[in-house]
Amino acid sequence: MFSFKNNIVLSRGSSRNLYLQLCDQIISFIKSGKIPPSTKLPSSRKLSEDLHVHRKTIIAAYDELITQGWIETIPYRGTFVTKSLPLITPKQFNYSGTENKSKEKSGFLFVTRPHLIRKLNTERSTSTLIIDDGIPDYRLVPNEEIAKIYRNITKKSYYKSLLSYGSIYGNAELRKHLVTFLNQTRGLNISIDNVLITRGSQMGIYLASQLLLNNKKRIITGSTNYMTADNTFTEAGAIIEQVPTDHNGLDTGAIEKICSTKKISAVYVTSHHHHPTTVTLSAKRRMHLLQLAQRYGFAIIEDDYDYDFHYSNSPILPLASSDTNGNVIYIGGFTKIIAPALRIGYLIAPKDFVDETARLRRIIDRQGDTLLEQTLAQMLHTGDIQRHSNKVLKIYKTRRDLFCLLLKEKLSAYFDFDIPKGGMAVWVTLNKAYNWDDICLKAKELHLEIAPDWRRYDNDNSGHNGIRMGFASLNEKEIQEVIDRLVMVFNELG
Amino acid sequence: MFSFKNNIVLSRGSSRNLYLQLCDQIISFIKSGKIPPSTKLPSSRKLSEDLHVHRKTIIAAYDELITQGWIETIPYRGTFVTKSLPLITPKQFNYSGTENKSKEKSGFLFVTRPHLIRKLNTERSTSTLIIDDGIPDYRLVPNEEIAKIYRNITKKSYYKSLLSYGSIYGNAELRKHLVTFLNQTRGLNISIDNVLITRGSQMGIYLASQLLLNNKKRIITGSTNYMTADNTFTEAGAIIEQVPTDHNGLDTGAIEKICSTKKISAVYVTSHHHHPTTVTLSAKRRMHLLQLAQRYGFAIIEDDYDYDFHYSNSPILPLASSDTNGNVIYIGGFTKIIAPALRIGYLIAPKDFVDETARLRRIIDRQGDTLLEQTLAQMLHTGDIQRHSNKVLKIYKTRRDLFCLLLKEKLSAYFDFDIPKGGMAVWVTLNKAYNWDDICLKAKELHLEIAPDWRRYDNDNSGHNGIRMGFASLNEKEIQEVIDRLVMVFNELG
Repeated sequence: MFSFKNNIVLSRGSSRNLYLQLCDQIISFIKSGKIPPSTKLPSSRKLSEDLHVHRKTIIAAYDELITQGWIETIPYRGTFVTKSLPLITPKQFNYSGTENKSKEKSGFLFVTRPHLIRKLNTERSTSTLIIDDGIPDYRLVPNEEIAKIYRNITKKSYYKSLLSYGSIYGNAELRKHLVTFLNQTRGLNISIDNVLITRGSQMGIYLASQLLLNNKKRIITGSTNYMTADNTFTEAGAIIEQVPTDHNGLDTGAIEKICSTKKISAVYVTSHHHHPTTVTLSAKRRMHLLQLAQRYGFAIIEDDYDYDFHYSNSPILPLASSDTNGNVIYIGGFTKIIAPALRIGYLIAPKDFVDETARLRRIIDRQGDTLLEQTLAQMLHTGDIQRHSNKVLKIYKTRRDLFCLLLKEKLSAYFDFDIPKGGMAVWVTLNKAYNWDDICLKAKELHLEIAPDWRRYDNDNSGHNGIRMGFASLNEKEIQEVIDRLVMVFNELG
Repeated sequence: MFSFKNNIVLSRGSSRNLYLQLCDQIISFIKSGKIPPSTKLPSSRKLSEDLHVHRKTIIAAYDELITQGWIETIPYRGTFVTKSLPLITPKQFNYSGTENKSKEKSGFLFVTRPHLIRKLNTERSTSTLIIDDGIPDYRLVPNEEIAKIYRNITKKSYYKSLLSYGSIYGNAELRKHLVTFLNQTRGLNISIDNVLITRGSQMGIYLASQLLLNNKKRIITGSTNYMTADNTFTEAGAIIEQVPTDHNGLDTGAIEKICSTKKISAVYVTSHHHHPTTVTLSAKRRMHLLQLAQRYGFAIIEDDYDYDFHYSNSPILPLASSDTNGNVIYIGGFTKIIAPALRIGYLIAPKDFVDETARLRRIIDRQGDTLLEQTLAQMLHTGDIQRHSNKVLKIYKTRRDLFCLLLKEKLSAYFDFDIPKGGMAVWVTLNKAYNWDDICLKAKELHLEIAPDWRRYDNDNSGHNGIRMGFASLNEKEIQEVIDRLVMVFNELG
């Protein structure tokens, strides 16, 4: 006879409800055969006395077990373990009994993509400091605000409906507030029909590329360019044409020259701060580029990933703000302001193009996370995002100033750079007497990780010798430490 | 002189903190010029008396405003509105002043996709009942469990790091627990290297298609097939070869015949319940299909989207459980068990293929929602998912039984169907004296929406006259009502 009293142990300190603990244990005893089918269970009154818990706890557990089909109540007789347990014993077929090991190699052919980054995993010790290429400091994530809004939403009557299938364009609330936000902050003049919510700005680049660039269509980018964008264009089947960039950004004269001889489908521009070199596309060139787009009928993919991060000057309005002809696909996101893992971005374009991207996204991931989108909608509406943005802007500016000051004071013999007007990274060019491989290797010995080779942005082997050094993710103490270790690297290299 | 006392109104009943209300209002007065730069602010003591709030509230608000750069404290003098406000006044360029209206048409060319579903928005009155094609009932979402785990995670020390950039393969905890879960429930024998976490199973189908099927490679599907999968293959550039399906699922003899004359890259199979007809692929055909895959070197894309939903029989183990040669790409997800909008799925395959899919997903959406993935990991670990799954299984079984009973009792003159062994829909074939267009139109008048034309699954115009009728999303009262309205439809059609 099975003794519930002796076998069941409930812990009040556990984060798991008592009644669920009781369920877990009874199920495991049923599964293991210790409580066989048709066994009568003690009454809730008896068991509550035996286990010293409230009778309601026992009743809740029994209800749960009945719902799941483990036990059943027979009127006037009591509660019993069901005869046919809800245990799944799937039917095997063809199982040889030999070890069916996890697979390393596939038994079929597939197309590998040499243009996609191959090194994916790096292991680091906890004492390692990292100079990334410009990412936000996750320690500044406004987690309490987010959690609070999340909680509030889960209490609303509409909450559950947010968890069903939703619009492939994204949550309607977020699209609405985004229209207001972008019209106010970026001088756009859009309506909700121009908005697709994406999983971060990268999905916007991917969707636009797939629709614009298949079958060897041509796209123009800078001769140094954001590598992941280049990879995305190559993946779509594009031919990439490069034009030089200088202190005013993309050379639009060179773009005009190419357009006069070849059919160009799109130009990719990170207008606010050119990636990787951080320069801003000048107002004059913005106008020129818009004129060219209209004349030659190409799309401008304007990736304005860090419009919100400007320290020294006011930003110039994006090209999208003066796009009278429907040539601009404006891409941005909140991952850099809020948190990289909460992937919310947007693609702004003429309605016909937005419709087509929505149809394509439907077969990629069906839709976004409506709950997260609703949360962001509220944060936009209440101004929480703008407030948080102002806050981190001040912090990042301080970090930029310190990083650049120390870089100049202690490392100007080795590095050349301009102070970036915004963003999260400095474009640092290495004295040609040195090379990055030696430096990265030596740095690693000192537990400092600098851009791996695929982060050097020298896609066309021009030998520019520059890398992006991110300052935003390091606090002031860490910045001091990073600079100290860099000084040691050069001392040791001699 | 601006009067704080007369202009600021704080509401204790609001869900917004008092100090944030105060911030909001002071900022808006500064922005509107009512409190000009360099204005001295009242002391926190004075303002707390004027507004009848605790002095700590005023101090918190002032701290927040200082952090954001709206006000500053000058030692021995007091607190002042800053001279240079943190207001963004972006520089305009080329702004003509004319109405820059939201765009309908783009000024560039892009490739439209005739194979993607074109009708995307449908408006419904609230009294409309919907016969969908088999989706879960969002009212059954275990929202309290999810919210509780979410909250617990946000209290952990590792929480913020989950919000930074994470693995392109998905959260390590989830991959680990998924290995155990799939090995236990599906007889797989996989390790963490075989697992990619996706945004629902659809992303798995998309990624696999892109890698396997470019450039007119051939894939075999059933002659009725899940339409979104077919669209995904077409999007990837595939040629689709069709084989018949019968009561044992895909005709593997027909597959063998095709393989003997053409190079086949993949076979797509919804093994547990063929979509749309809900039949199960027999054990014998599973073996045959695996043998063919090995002999001809093709991939089996096994979309096991509703393995967990079986009512009458134990399920047959998936093909992936007996895949000794690395031919199977096993795709599944939790959206149907948990909630459609919480898009978590998985792709299980040999390591080399998983690595390549991860690289591709990196340029699509970078990574998943680590926080949500961590939540699901815990739900798998504690057994919450299995428990919830058992619970909804019982409910859906009752709904299936009622739906089929009423369909048989009241509509057998018009419809032919088999009771499905699992899943969320019945495959209903219409008496050829009728056609779906008339029925759908008439139904709409009675506020009943049945599958629109693109949901009829007759991709190859075979005239099978079948549709999927979902029963899972309707409660018992709604099922009664739906059947009553269907009876009225046929009565009116005569």
